[in-house]
Amino acid sequence: MKKFTSINDVESLDQLLDLAGNVKNNPYGYKSIGENKTLGLIFFNPSLRTRLSTQKAAMNLGMNMMVLNIDKEGWNIEMEDGAIMNQGSQEHIKDAAAVISQYCDIVGVRTFASLLNKEEDYQEKILSKFIKYATVPILSLESAIRHPLQSLADLLTIKEQSIQKKPKVVLTWAPHPKALPQAVSNSFVEWIKHTDVEFIIANPKGFDLSTEFTNGVEVSYNQEKALENADFVYVKNWSSFDNYGEISTQNSEWTITKEKMKLTNTAKMMHCLPVRRNVVVMDDVLDSENSLIMEQVNNRTYAAQAVLIKLLQHEN
Amino acid sequence: MKKFTSINDVESLDQLLDLAGNVKNNPYGYKSIGENKTLGLIFFNPSLRTRLSTQKAAMNLGMNMMVLNIDKEGWNIEMEDGAIMNQGSQEHIKDAAAVISQYCDIVGVRTFASLLNKEEDYQEKILSKFIKYATVPILSLESAIRHPLQSLADLLTIKEQSIQKKPKVVLTWAPHPKALPQAVSNSFVEWIKHTDVEFIIANPKGFDLSTEFTNGVEVSYNQEKALENADFVYVKNWSSFDNYGEISTQNSEWTITKEKMKLTNTAKMMHCLPVRRNVVVMDDVLDSENSLIMEQVNNRTYAAQAVLIKLLQHEN
Amino acid sequence: MKKFTSINDVESLDQLLDLAGNVKNNPYGYKSIGENKTLGLIFFNPSLRTRLSTQKAAMNLGMNMMVLNIDKEGWNIEMEDGAIMNQGSQEHIKDAAAVISQYCDIVGVRTFASLLNKEEDYQEKILSKFIKYATVPILSLESAIRHPLQSLADLLTIKEQSIQKKPKVVLTWAPHPKALPQAVSNSFVEWIKHTDVEFIIANPKGFDLSTEFTNGVEVSYNQEKALENADFVYVKNWSSFDNYGEISTQNSEWTITKEKMKLTNTAKMMHCLPVRRNVVVMDDVLDSENSLIMEQVNNRTYAAQAVLIKLLQHEN
Repeated sequence: MKKFTSINDVESLDQLLDLAGNVKNNPYGYKSIGENKTLGLIFFNPSLRTRLSTQKAAMNLGMNMMVLNIDKEGWNIEMEDGAIMNQGSQEHIKDAAAVISQYCDIVGVRTFASLLNKEEDYQEKILSKFIKYATVPILSLESAIRHPLQSLADLLTIKEQSIQKKPKVVLTWAPHPKALPQAVSNSFVEWIKHTDVEFIIANPKGFDLSTEFTNGVEVSYNQEKALENADFVYVKNWSSFDNYGEISTQNSEWTITKEKMKLTNTAKMMHCLPVRRNVVVMDDVLDSENSLIMEQVNNRTYAAQAVLIKLLQHEN
Repeated sequence: MKKFTSINDVESLDQLLDLAGNVKNNPYGYKSIGENKTLGLIFFNPSLRTRLSTQKAAMNLGMNMMVLNIDKEGWNIEMEDGAIMNQGSQEHIKDAAAVISQYCDIVGVRTFASLLNKEEDYQEKILSKFIKYATVPILSLESAIRHPLQSLADLLTIKEQSIQKKPKVVLTWAPHPKALPQAVSNSFVEWIKHTDVEFIIANPKGFDLSTEFTNGVEVSYNQEKALENADFVYVKNWSSFDNYGEISTQNSEWTITKEKMKLTNTAKMMHCLPVRRNVVVMDDVLDSENSLIMEQVNNRTYAAQAVLIKLLQHEN
Repeated sequence: MKKFTSINDVESLDQLLDLAGNVKNNPYGYKSIGENKTLGLIFFNPSLRTRLSTQKAAMNLGMNMMVLNIDKEGWNIEMEDGAIMNQGSQEHIKDAAAVISQYCDIVGVRTFASLLNKEEDYQEKILSKFIKYATVPILSLESAIRHPLQSLADLLTIKEQSIQKKPKVVLTWAPHPKALPQAVSNSFVEWIKHTDVEFIIANPKGFDLSTEFTNGVEVSYNQEKALENADFVYVKNWSSFDNYGEISTQNSEWTITKEKMKLTNTAKMMHCLPVRRNVVVMDDVLDSENSLIMEQVNNRTYAAQAVLIKLLQHEN
């Protein structure tokens, strides 16, 4: 694998999931592969799970690591090619990406959507420039419109449940007081489409995801109907794609409750975290036996570790 | 040891002090014990000595490490159980503590007293929630009302002086321009009570520590009298417990000077640092031959290392 | 080497350059030298290249590492000896430097010029106090008036070009919208004077560097004339030394362009980065085949590694 920024970078999803499973069974079995290799983790935005799980994955592989909160510890980065840099930005992305490449064998980048400029976000402006100007493989730690490490961990979590029949998976929108990117949801759709499940998205009118991702997927505006017979309920808020970045002050009835979960086939509940408790999902669902949130968290390590192995194998 | 948050977590203080002494003589002699073990260090507040000495201790044991300034690099944490999280906090402590536990074998937590709410501080609100929701051992890097790693280093420092007779130890309040927690002082009292010394606390009226800690200890409002014949003078400011969090604009005569040290039995002077020089203690005392401040600093490493060994031994 | 803060700390420049070259050929060949040795990196200011390259160098040597953004993660530092610390600063440099020395075998310090007080900056106020109060070797990661790790990497970069004749090296001032320290330029002058080159500095009137550094060096106010027949053009902005810290709103014609480079002997162009593109140097020069900027960046690792080896050899 030359980079890991979307499912399109993955040659074989089955093989990658198998590798993640093997790594989980034997986390230190690949410790020689990372010797004298350095992972740089570059954060433009906050991160807890991704920050810690990717570090853990790299340490399990014996890699060296350097973490940079680039906005706070480095310089302000200019993103426009050809800019006359006589204003606030101090270093061009062209130089920053090339510089970091001199010191690292793989560079992880975390950068959120602006939610102000749909076109720039959906062109993955910052991530694309890192890919363009870095001279080593780029690992997405969440970008404007995708979060592939999360999706790989999510699919590993679903696979581990060993549902015999073809399971029904519902991705449902839920309320949230702030505008969130569509990245986790876009990515989940993009990845789940490559698996053998019955998949449906439930969201209020005005909150359809981009058809770039949902093309071919059933979308329902009736959450309760969508939940019927579900085996997995993936809950997630996202701000509007159509009215880009807007949030809903209505639709509070979309919160996932114990009562709604009764409509399902004793479904497992999933969420990528962080979660606004009792707004997105109620406590008694998050803390129930059917909640997979900590399995998802744990699998982040093995997802990252499998991806790092693939990137290192290319690099060697 | 299942956690390290107060002296109550310690089975045998003598054994722990012996272990710290052994580690000091042979810092790299325990390097296999930490292999493939990960220490997470979570900071809600500034830290210099604790941050560096605990990292050093972990590296001496061959542990992996992840440092998180959670307030700046992660998400805002909600502390109230059952909260409807539609305001500023983004992640519940219940989830944060459980998530970090997925990636770490031991979790160190640094969190200061608010000094605004005595009841919450003295219930160790934040630390208690970490203990409750984490699934791995918790290591206090200073909490609202205790700083046990400091106290262990302090006792090791006193022990190393090998005073033959039962020494007289004075903990004396000193002036300070800002409101400081009572944590270091509470903890020192809690730990020194388990040793065979003559112990007295000197502080101005209105600055008595909580009787939860000082129960059975002599308290004097006359600093000069208390210093007479002292072998160790531990200097520290704390804000008022009774008028919770208030400071004194009087009592500047409580500063520790060379003249006051002459009242003692050529006592050793101790302070946990950072110290406001020429306010809490005068330069010529801090920089004198009888100052133990750098011994205390150095012993922080071995205190932390002994505690990590005990936590790892439980964990295995 | 007991410390590395200027060329005056270097016994033999030739030997140090040879060592850096050897390290570049065999980066992991010195991995036992750093075992159980700890490098502390203390940042008072932003850093990208220095931060990452010094970490990389330490990891190549098998060293442990601790990084501290002291202004954000630690305490406010008091710099005045004898200060009555009843104001904003919480810890004296005397204590901070001694404390850090207890946990590290080498301490790297990054601190910029204030550009407000020429005398304090040119006395290296902060760095000097670290040298005075630390008990272990100090490694400058850029100080008020020098950046020796950059200069060593620059000289290695020039040496690698293997120009047969005695090359002509031009250090030229260039425009910049903000006030920058003179550190990189001072240091480059200080180091290049020890090599066998024809050296000239070009800058506008009012922008002469301190004669402490330029003593014996030709200075021209005519950039185009200075560039004639140059083999290396080192471009750098600096604020005024005479009108201390002032910048120029004129002199925009000093930007390095493709046309100006045509005056040279197909010169190699150098800059330490970060660079304000199209203000200091035009894109087509920075991105040309004759640009050495990424070689300079890469050589930062081997410069730091050679210096760490020298400091560790003294320390052992």
